[in-house]
Amino acid sequence: MSGQSLPEWMSGHQKHFETVLEALLPARHSIPVRLHEAMRYAALGGGKRVRPLLVQAAGELARAPAKALDSAAAAVELIHAYSLVHDDMPCMDNDVLRRGKPTVHVEFDEATALLVGDALQTQAFQVLAAPGLIADPARQLRMLDVLARASGSHGMAGGQAIDLAAVGHSLSREELEFMHILKTGALIRASVQLGSLAGTMDETGLAALDRFAKTVGLLFQVVDDILDAESDTATLGKTAGKDAEHDKPTYVSLLGLPDAKRLAAELHDQALAALAGFGGSAARLVQLTDFIVERSF
Amino acid sequence: MSGQSLPEWMSGHQKHFETVLEALLPARHSIPVRLHEAMRYAALGGGKRVRPLLVQAAGELARAPAKALDSAAAAVELIHAYSLVHDDMPCMDNDVLRRGKPTVHVEFDEATALLVGDALQTQAFQVLAAPGLIADPARQLRMLDVLARASGSHGMAGGQAIDLAAVGHSLSREELEFMHILKTGALIRASVQLGSLAGTMDETGLAALDRFAKTVGLLFQVVDDILDAESDTATLGKTAGKDAEHDKPTYVSLLGLPDAKRLAAELHDQALAALAGFGGSAARLVQLTDFIVERSF
Repeated sequence: MSGQSLPEWMSGHQKHFETVLEALLPARHSIPVRLHEAMRYAALGGGKRVRPLLVQAAGELARAPAKALDSAAAAVELIHAYSLVHDDMPCMDNDVLRRGKPTVHVEFDEATALLVGDALQTQAFQVLAAPGLIADPARQLRMLDVLARASGSHGMAGGQAIDLAAVGHSLSREELEFMHILKTGALIRASVQLGSLAGTMDETGLAALDRFAKTVGLLFQVVDDILDAESDTATLGKTAGKDAEHDKPTYVSLLGLPDAKRLAAELHDQALAALAGFGGSAARLVQLTDFIVERSF
Repeated sequence: MSGQSLPEWMSGHQKHFETVLEALLPARHSIPVRLHEAMRYAALGGGKRVRPLLVQAAGELARAPAKALDSAAAAVELIHAYSLVHDDMPCMDNDVLRRGKPTVHVEFDEATALLVGDALQTQAFQVLAAPGLIADPARQLRMLDVLARASGSHGMAGGQAIDLAAVGHSLSREELEFMHILKTGALIRASVQLGSLAGTMDETGLAALDRFAKTVGLLFQVVDDILDAESDTATLGKTAGKDAEHDKPTYVSLLGLPDAKRLAAELHDQALAALAGFGGSAARLVQLTDFIVERSF
């Protein structure tokens, strides 16, 4: 770990990821212009880049090459960006505001939003398939497999389908947990896995880091539910209280705010325990986990 | 090439691709059930599987292992199926009939159709990323790169964006050709490339086969436009004359039917010329090209 403070490290990497995405997304004036403008609108200039930061922190622990981490970070962020664009569409959450800006289907149109999401997803896989991304092509294929499993019908897209089906229904804690493990947890987990796979960590290290990754994926969602219940629209940069308004089950609606906070604290402890074996080399991941719990964005 | 006639070879492989897709798609009763049912509805039981047949024929020429061809064939078909589901949605072509069945958003709902397309695309990449698909992992990465480039904003999705923007406008022949090269041609071309990459063909062979692939991609679209103008709904299995009705530019609307047919004949000759160097080993690809021109489905 470098001697930078977490805010310095985060801010430096957030700026860096922006330039990585800038360079990697199709040029603004290349044909089809409107699609490319909308892809850039959707993926640039917003968000805390939590997933890329997790790729980076796990990758530093695994001594992965910087360029491979840039690509892995961009790939997870492109998947995340695609999911937000499609999630905001009228047939899904029908959101008009995202990160303080009009959503893609509002700023452009629905058909463009559909194609933007489709093309951002494709680009995520293209980025990870680049020849020679890491020295070992078999390990690179494993990174692609991890990203695909995390994104598909047994991962993020599956979680969204369960979420849709759950509107207006009450879920048990087990059902809610399963939904969140897929919907948010899978891609958070994949972020850590991609960072560690890009390096040369052995299978024992990968397994330990994956225990951390699974816990932090769930933790992230519990904190998100707490924030959604507590924050106002200005702080959150999206319409606050949407989940309650849509009658969507959340940890807060299921457990109540105090117990949801207790659960977050428990998961926080478990995540840090999973990192214990790495000692001081995992300090950045520890700081990032603390930040995920304490964030107020 | 085996001694089978083209109809026997096609029918055998069409049935085989169905069982490959059957086995590879998420099980009907696995959670989330509705999403998985809809994915199977979208991808199974329909279509002539032209892209998988091109993968197969090119793969036979390149002496590729059967299992790798199954996966490559499934991957292109999953991309094709995802594009149809999204293309049929109300914000795009708003089609209610596809292959004689209600489209996915009609049979299920819009949100499900959105997620079905998303998850089918993801699965295409997952299939190609499977460990050990072919002996050389670097070449397997190249297959993933080919599929991504053909599908994204500089390929199929980009062609759809240009198509959208063109509704109600007149295009020059160059513009129309560029749109079709992206929208349909890119994935047809990728089918041939994937089949040949799955084998051990050298770079000279790959380049020659790619000249064929580019031409056949455009040929396919010209024939499609001719069929759309000539066929009735029953033969086509989709609403006929939709393109004219939507005021979409086609080769027929641009050139008139006789010149569109002359163009198809020219492209047909060029495609066969590109295969000449392979002699008798390319006989199946020659037959398949003839079939693409003469088909009446």
